[in-house]
Amino acid sequence: MTIILDYSLFFEICDILGTLAFAISGLRLAAAKDFDWFGAYVVGLTTAIGGGTLRDVLLHATPFWMTNPLYLICSAFALIWVIAFKKRLVNQEHTWFLFDAIGLGLFTVTGIERTLSMDFPYWVAIMMGTMTGAAGGVLRDVLINETPLIFRKDIYATACICGGILFMLCDMAGLPREITGVLAGIAVIGIRILAVRYHVMLPVLHIDHQEEESNNK
Amino acid sequence: MTIILDYSLFFEICDILGTLAFAISGLRLAAAKDFDWFGAYVVGLTTAIGGGTLRDVLLHATPFWMTNPLYLICSAFALIWVIAFKKRLVNQEHTWFLFDAIGLGLFTVTGIERTLSMDFPYWVAIMMGTMTGAAGGVLRDVLINETPLIFRKDIYATACICGGILFMLCDMAGLPREITGVLAGIAVIGIRILAVRYHVMLPVLHIDHQEEESNNK
Amino acid sequence: MTIILDYSLFFEICDILGTLAFAISGLRLAAAKDFDWFGAYVVGLTTAIGGGTLRDVLLHATPFWMTNPLYLICSAFALIWVIAFKKRLVNQEHTWFLFDAIGLGLFTVTGIERTLSMDFPYWVAIMMGTMTGAAGGVLRDVLINETPLIFRKDIYATACICGGILFMLCDMAGLPREITGVLAGIAVIGIRILAVRYHVMLPVLHIDHQEEESNNK
Repeated sequence: MTIILDYSLFFEICDILGTLAFAISGLRLAAAKDFDWFGAYVVGLTTAIGGGTLRDVLLHATPFWMTNPLYLICSAFALIWVIAFKKRLVNQEHTWFLFDAIGLGLFTVTGIERTLSMDFPYWVAIMMGTMTGAAGGVLRDVLINETPLIFRKDIYATACICGGILFMLCDMAGLPREITGVLAGIAVIGIRILAVRYHVMLPVLHIDHQEEESNNK
Repeated sequence: MTIILDYSLFFEICDILGTLAFAISGLRLAAAKDFDWFGAYVVGLTTAIGGGTLRDVLLHATPFWMTNPLYLICSAFALIWVIAFKKRLVNQEHTWFLFDAIGLGLFTVTGIERTLSMDFPYWVAIMMGTMTGAAGGVLRDVLINETPLIFRKDIYATACICGGILFMLCDMAGLPREITGVLAGIAVIGIRILAVRYHVMLPVLHIDHQEEESNNK
Repeated sequence: MTIILDYSLFFEICDILGTLAFAISGLRLAAAKDFDWFGAYVVGLTTAIGGGTLRDVLLHATPFWMTNPLYLICSAFALIWVIAFKKRLVNQEHTWFLFDAIGLGLFTVTGIERTLSMDFPYWVAIMMGTMTGAAGGVLRDVLINETPLIFRKDIYATACICGGILFMLCDMAGLPREITGVLAGIAVIGIRILAVRYHVMLPVLHIDHQEEESNNK
């Protein structure tokens, strides 16, 4: 691999792979609920663009997908892919997991950079980066009427937060933004992959059962 | 019917009928969940104004109902109607279905026109029109904790998309906006009514059950 | 209590107590669903800041918590509190209920004042005040996948509406804003506490069961 990659082309490829992987995760969960093609498409699209949309609404920016049809097209392509390969999606599991991690890393960094460019402090940028990466999955689970998976399982948003903190530290140390972005993205991807591989999870918040009762009364 | 109707009065009547029908659909589903009057009102109101609100938030416009109390009043009237006619709502089923379809057509066209007036391209306008018509029902189902009905049953949002494409074609062909709007609205209403009458549905997205399992693990 | 309290300090203390109480209500319900620490934190934070965020998005203002890290810190403190006192939270029930009512009163008044300062009419301000106080709990219940509690039980949002109407009347009568705010806040707190104490509830919206069936078909 001695080919010199165009920097922005590299990001565009990661963006497309991440969007496809996010959309496919939404489509598969929608299929498990017997949604029709339209419903599944909306869930897939929401998974892919929901995080960035929430970020842009909070930042008072025009939602990123309203100026570029790429994300709608990618989600449509993901729908066609799922319809075509429905029996073989299981075998592609590892590939899509990897692309999902790449998307998570890229979206987090994109969200941080966009927020900092609007003169918000680091802590807001880290929150927005985490939202860009992880909120799409939460909206997906709201639409399919399940409790959000990332609130119960695996390290997902936590990887975004760690990557965000690394971004802040590198940026404070004066590293160039491009290197900072790549390092933070790799951190998110690495933490996500290692956490799944070694079954690292956050502790569950337990309170007395009696407590829960009285709480729901 | 040789009466010459005032154009804007005609739209205002359709707007009121649509708002009432949307609110009543929310109120009935809330009643089925034993919500109290306040909860039911919020669900009815959300069904009626949710789609347009989401559109306005994404377009960075002031939500339409914040400048005109008509929609809150219509929703309150719908609540009174449901309380008063609770035993006879079943007999009004066809009437409310028709008003709902009229609302769907009008809201779609309104959403498209508002988006185009802000210089967005057609594809964004079609999405926003569809959202204006159909997202209220999705928010309603999120609030009553059900999977969104329009993702599983009937042609609903699909009618908005077809009407939106017709709007685009007529507008590109140079037809006056008023005629374009009426044609697109009639298309939405017609497709919606015919789809329900002849039980036309979109295909369900099916993937292997084994697949779903591994996906939820 | 003859100590002269600094006015803004007094509000800041109420704000912190309210934020803590709201966050703790979210954390406890998240714990009952076996969320991990991160998921529980997000639910707690959403309960605390969700209502004000929805208000600010609709008003096109920068969400209040993006300019002051206090709310994120309070929610983190609430998480630590719940982890530390998990067995004794039941005994603190009355205290947290009181703080929750104080938060409800303060958030309602804050929402009304913010909306009026942007030249919206009273009816929009009352809606925004109610949303500031009550929408966080709705978003919390959406995230934990339950039907919103405030749509089914107790007087909660209704207390905000009553307080909002009192605010409007006092303001129209020419009372100074500070006194108006305090009176409205006390009204919200008082109505909330009395309603729970005397089990006052709104009527449930009932329609025929046959009706519900046909509606869900």
